[in-house]
Amino acid sequence: MNMAMIDDRMLPTDELDKAYLDRGLYFGDGVYEVLRSYDGRIFALDEHLARFERSLKEILIAGVDMAAVRQRIESAFAESGYPNAKIYFHVTRGSEPRSHLPGEGLRPNFMLTVEALGDDDPAKRQGVGVWTHPDWRWKRCDIKSLNLLANVLARIAVQDKGASEAILVDEAGRITEGAGSAFFAVDGSEKILMTRPLGPEILPSITRAIVTQIAQNIGLTVVQKAQRPAQAAACDELFLAVTTKDIVPITRFEGRPVGNGNVGEVTGKLMAEFAAFVRK
Amino acid sequence: MNMAMIDDRMLPTDELDKAYLDRGLYFGDGVYEVLRSYDGRIFALDEHLARFERSLKEILIAGVDMAAVRQRIESAFAESGYPNAKIYFHVTRGSEPRSHLPGEGLRPNFMLTVEALGDDDPAKRQGVGVWTHPDWRWKRCDIKSLNLLANVLARIAVQDKGASEAILVDEAGRITEGAGSAFFAVDGSEKILMTRPLGPEILPSITRAIVTQIAQNIGLTVVQKAQRPAQAAACDELFLAVTTKDIVPITRFEGRPVGNGNVGEVTGKLMAEFAAFVRK
Repeated sequence: MNMAMIDDRMLPTDELDKAYLDRGLYFGDGVYEVLRSYDGRIFALDEHLARFERSLKEILIAGVDMAAVRQRIESAFAESGYPNAKIYFHVTRGSEPRSHLPGEGLRPNFMLTVEALGDDDPAKRQGVGVWTHPDWRWKRCDIKSLNLLANVLARIAVQDKGASEAILVDEAGRITEGAGSAFFAVDGSEKILMTRPLGPEILPSITRAIVTQIAQNIGLTVVQKAQRPAQAAACDELFLAVTTKDIVPITRFEGRPVGNGNVGEVTGKLMAEFAAFVRK
Repeated sequence: MNMAMIDDRMLPTDELDKAYLDRGLYFGDGVYEVLRSYDGRIFALDEHLARFERSLKEILIAGVDMAAVRQRIESAFAESGYPNAKIYFHVTRGSEPRSHLPGEGLRPNFMLTVEALGDDDPAKRQGVGVWTHPDWRWKRCDIKSLNLLANVLARIAVQDKGASEAILVDEAGRITEGAGSAFFAVDGSEKILMTRPLGPEILPSITRAIVTQIAQNIGLTVVQKAQRPAQAAACDELFLAVTTKDIVPITRFEGRPVGNGNVGEVTGKLMAEFAAFVRK
């Protein structure tokens, strides 16, 4: 008989819950999004849903009702009662006995969680330290997939150095992005904001898009160019952009202070503009 | 309240089964192995356990009792009653609310399945067709991790071309391995067996190791060198090596016959030797 074990429990495979036959578990065969709300309103929902739909298409998962996804997000958010919430959701290709090639007629699995999110993160006020790590990820980082082991390993590695984000560096020695964030550098005197151009090496971050828009509004020139770690370390200001915290100043790069070691002036201005933008 | 949804079902996150909080699902944060038995005996169990232990170490999962893993494999295999079985198992870092950085005191999750395996696969007798696909995988393919979306997408892509395995090609235009197998080429007149050298780009395949040993036993010279698809296509014989089927002849490469289009002489000899070896 086809047998299965979950930890020490043996059972016929037929009796396994479908969660244990999820292709998300066996292959990371799914895509996800993370949203947040500000003061009772989900931020940039359309943009996240559009990116999610693209991710599904890129990995050839069909049959997902996007209107139903939107409704689930809205109803779970309402049910949570949190004005400031973090909403995670994913879709996997479905559940079936493990086989690389998916079977016919699979039905995608949906999962979502909502949790409370504070807006008073000390990381935002004081800045964080970052450290570089080789970018071991796959070649389609433009797809927001469940294959995130490289990101996890990078985070674990830099934690040992007291850093809270890993800045990933490609084989050409250039920064791609953070393990869970977009990466920006500021040249204060020239009023330039630098970040890597979009491509298969990085996620088309929605927060990144908003930051570059806001930057232009306040008179910065946005230059899309990949930097070496040494170039980044020499910049006046550095920061991360991530959905759950929008802009997070980087005050230490590989153990050394960035600029004067405090949250930079341009970064502070962008943070204030971002805060105004999300509550418009 | 922290809320979750599984498909259309809403529930407090606290009530989620731990399967839905598995870091294997969120990040592919785990490693796996596939074993097979021949006539009631699990083949190369020590070798697979050693590789598994190395994979665990490489992704920094500690606290897995390898003796217990061995015992679970043996007891589930015995319970199945299958003389020829395929045994899959994985360990993930554990279950907890989603966060890239793992929490303290996580307990790894174990899962295993056993199913029947026939030894009369027509693919082995008639050979299979393969097609190339860009190798989109991460940079640590020496770790047998649950991050397999690139492998899945490659299989789906070549299926549309009537091929049953994708031969992955790196950015330098050289073959790494199959999406789920090792790749070998034979120069019949020179009695040479060619395969890519071990490194972070390929899995240290146990079947590959046995094949190269057997090849030397029957007088072949093993040359470890990465090939371009055009070089492979021009070889006398090609084959795949994979645990569940050991050696599978390739008779069509990108739609064209390999050699005379039949299972090659050297491949046939290796298959016979392998069959003898596993039942020694």
